[in-house]
Amino acid sequence: MKFNENIIGKIAEIEGVSKENILKGLRSGEIAIPYNKIHSPMHPMAIGTGLRTKVNANIGTSKEFSDLSQELEKVEICLKNKADAIMDLSVGGNLDEIRQAVINASTLPVGTVPIYQAAIESGSIEKMTADKMFNVIEKHARSGVDFMTIHCGVTRALIKRISGKTRIMDIVSRGGAFLYRWMTVREKENPLYEEYDRLLEIAKKYDVALSLGDGMRPGSIADAGDMLQMGELKVLGKLAQRARKAGVQVIIEGPGHVPLDEIEGQVKLEKKICNKAPFYVLGPLPTDIAPGWDHLTSAIGGSLAAAAGADFLCYVTPSEHLGLPSLSDVREGIIAARIAAHIGDIVKGVKGAKDWDIEMSKARKALKWEKQIELSIDPATASEIREMRSVREKTDTCTMCGEFCAMKVVSEANKRKK
Amino acid sequence: MKFNENIIGKIAEIEGVSKENILKGLRSGEIAIPYNKIHSPMHPMAIGTGLRTKVNANIGTSKEFSDLSQELEKVEICLKNKADAIMDLSVGGNLDEIRQAVINASTLPVGTVPIYQAAIESGSIEKMTADKMFNVIEKHARSGVDFMTIHCGVTRALIKRISGKTRIMDIVSRGGAFLYRWMTVREKENPLYEEYDRLLEIAKKYDVALSLGDGMRPGSIADAGDMLQMGELKVLGKLAQRARKAGVQVIIEGPGHVPLDEIEGQVKLEKKICNKAPFYVLGPLPTDIAPGWDHLTSAIGGSLAAAAGADFLCYVTPSEHLGLPSLSDVREGIIAARIAAHIGDIVKGVKGAKDWDIEMSKARKALKWEKQIELSIDPATASEIREMRSVREKTDTCTMCGEFCAMKVVSEANKRKK
Repeated sequence: MKFNENIIGKIAEIEGVSKENILKGLRSGEIAIPYNKIHSPMHPMAIGTGLRTKVNANIGTSKEFSDLSQELEKVEICLKNKADAIMDLSVGGNLDEIRQAVINASTLPVGTVPIYQAAIESGSIEKMTADKMFNVIEKHARSGVDFMTIHCGVTRALIKRISGKTRIMDIVSRGGAFLYRWMTVREKENPLYEEYDRLLEIAKKYDVALSLGDGMRPGSIADAGDMLQMGELKVLGKLAQRARKAGVQVIIEGPGHVPLDEIEGQVKLEKKICNKAPFYVLGPLPTDIAPGWDHLTSAIGGSLAAAAGADFLCYVTPSEHLGLPSLSDVREGIIAARIAAHIGDIVKGVKGAKDWDIEMSKARKALKWEKQIELSIDPATASEIREMRSVREKTDTCTMCGEFCAMKVVSEANKRKK
Repeated sequence: MKFNENIIGKIAEIEGVSKENILKGLRSGEIAIPYNKIHSPMHPMAIGTGLRTKVNANIGTSKEFSDLSQELEKVEICLKNKADAIMDLSVGGNLDEIRQAVINASTLPVGTVPIYQAAIESGSIEKMTADKMFNVIEKHARSGVDFMTIHCGVTRALIKRISGKTRIMDIVSRGGAFLYRWMTVREKENPLYEEYDRLLEIAKKYDVALSLGDGMRPGSIADAGDMLQMGELKVLGKLAQRARKAGVQVIIEGPGHVPLDEIEGQVKLEKKICNKAPFYVLGPLPTDIAPGWDHLTSAIGGSLAAAAGADFLCYVTPSEHLGLPSLSDVREGIIAARIAAHIGDIVKGVKGAKDWDIEMSKARKALKWEKQIELSIDPATASEIREMRSVREKTDTCTMCGEFCAMKVVSEANKRKK
């Protein structure tokens, strides 16, 4: 595997770790840098052991809502609110045009799930050929996509285990469902698994990082950690090993919906089965009953996952399970996931993470309000609330406690003590 | 200790546990029922081992914002959004009038922190006498308050340990700060500690549950678990034991700001030191850098605390650290804390908790949208998002995936398989 020295230097500087550490992680497969030279994102980033937990934001059109200008607004929101990566999951409108516009507009690495376009352009899932799948994958790579989700762990052996009684939610991954249908109707093996070497060749040629999708991820906390999920993870572990041997960067996707007390175990298991490959989690949501609030439920699960070693959090927005996210949903999803990532980073001991909290606490004790706003993960919201609930005559406290502010009461007591 | 048989029967029915279990918990002190006969809240509830995790919402005026009608609106919001208890923390306006109006309007148990009123009515913290403290406590009890936070663990021996270098945030509890100042300026022991038996007499007389406040709780993750916090917890453990012997119900208040990986340990320690007394946590917030989002950070810490055994979660609103909560903040704070409590209840194995998630998953798989909304913890928000992002011609899917809905794709594949 050849690595771009400049990029590694830049990343080492941003993360505050040595270039040697980054290189070591890249060689062992514990670190991945999704960076396609054709795109050359201005803000490269690395995912994996010893590094800050990263956040991905999913954008993209649906058949019902397809508006390129809105997608570009979403890209702007991602950049402004400090996501680390963007995935374009468009399934409506001119897919090539949208993807290219997103790549051109994004200074962050961009990911896609090529199977969507392959199915759509084929007219139906069943009509899609194996060649079509690989051709779209190569087209995406050629257009500059930095990382791709490929559901190559959905095998015939696994889906044979699915009957009406196996699970409450069967399959909730869109890509996983596409392949399940394709394999069921065609009675054939998954080409992305069967012809995995063909995939590796494309990935190698364009230096695209593979994100091995979890088509069998649980979509209900009751389905978490079952034989389907664990079976797929085992397959992914082997495929990850093959990717490494072929000099292809790989990350592993994970759940999903998982009870709170099973999250840590799931992360540890992925690290074990996949030889510490970077773990990219979609949630996990520790409850199913909060549509409208799944940015919050996923931040709960994401914090725990990150603390346990997950490296990359896919955001979830308030409209998850309900509809395509609005612009404000995208913003809220990013902030919620960044909070989760940071909470995990404090536990991981990531350089500078806890210092940020200490700086905030000091500003809080000193009642330095401008500093507090400046140090907030979301200064706009913090400032808005403070302004809305403040009084005309500016005080040094807040309107919750006013003169009874604990900080003020204590500091005045200390003055009198002297 | 005498217990109201009717109330216990009602609670046993709601919780789906036996009356004997409730009685056993009350006798051992593992369960508390804040229920003042003078108030006789229409919706009584119990806090402790084996029961659903409860949620408290703080309301109350400040000097800058004091409007009785708005407080009563907050009570309405608490009832409508299913908080389990309300604390009136008013420090502005006519305190007796506001408290009485809140008690009259609330069908839920009501709590207060009498030291605020004692200090305010004395003209200054320093001028407050020990008698004044106990008189206000008795006044609150007489007016029907069901539980009270009393900071009796803030002792002279403890505060002697506070110097400029001990902590980043010194004291962030308002009650703790009041007592620190009183003791520092007067050079006397905390009357609520020194004359604890006087407190127990009042609590016994009116059957008010005592919530032993954590005046030394950490206000920065860097201060968590230090000698001040642990020292106070030891004092509270002893005072809880004395309360039990005196036939007074007691719960213990806890942090605060705590790194994610220290939350479980803190809960286990409280249970050990305080002989499994119900644990009432204020957060905990696993990061300090998210003002404007502390309903979310506290839901993260609260989920973990509940899963580890915390029994009662105090909500935190988006305006925490910034100002007095608005009406919508109160609503958001309650929902966030209820989600955290439920996530904890799934892990605790509380009766019916996981079933709720399974029902939702089934409705989701069947694409039954009305059922999903109905089962949502916040149906109003879920419904609003679904409506906002839906299309005119109603489909059975959502606008995220449309015809590419995984549920739909799989169910159609299964039909073709047959």
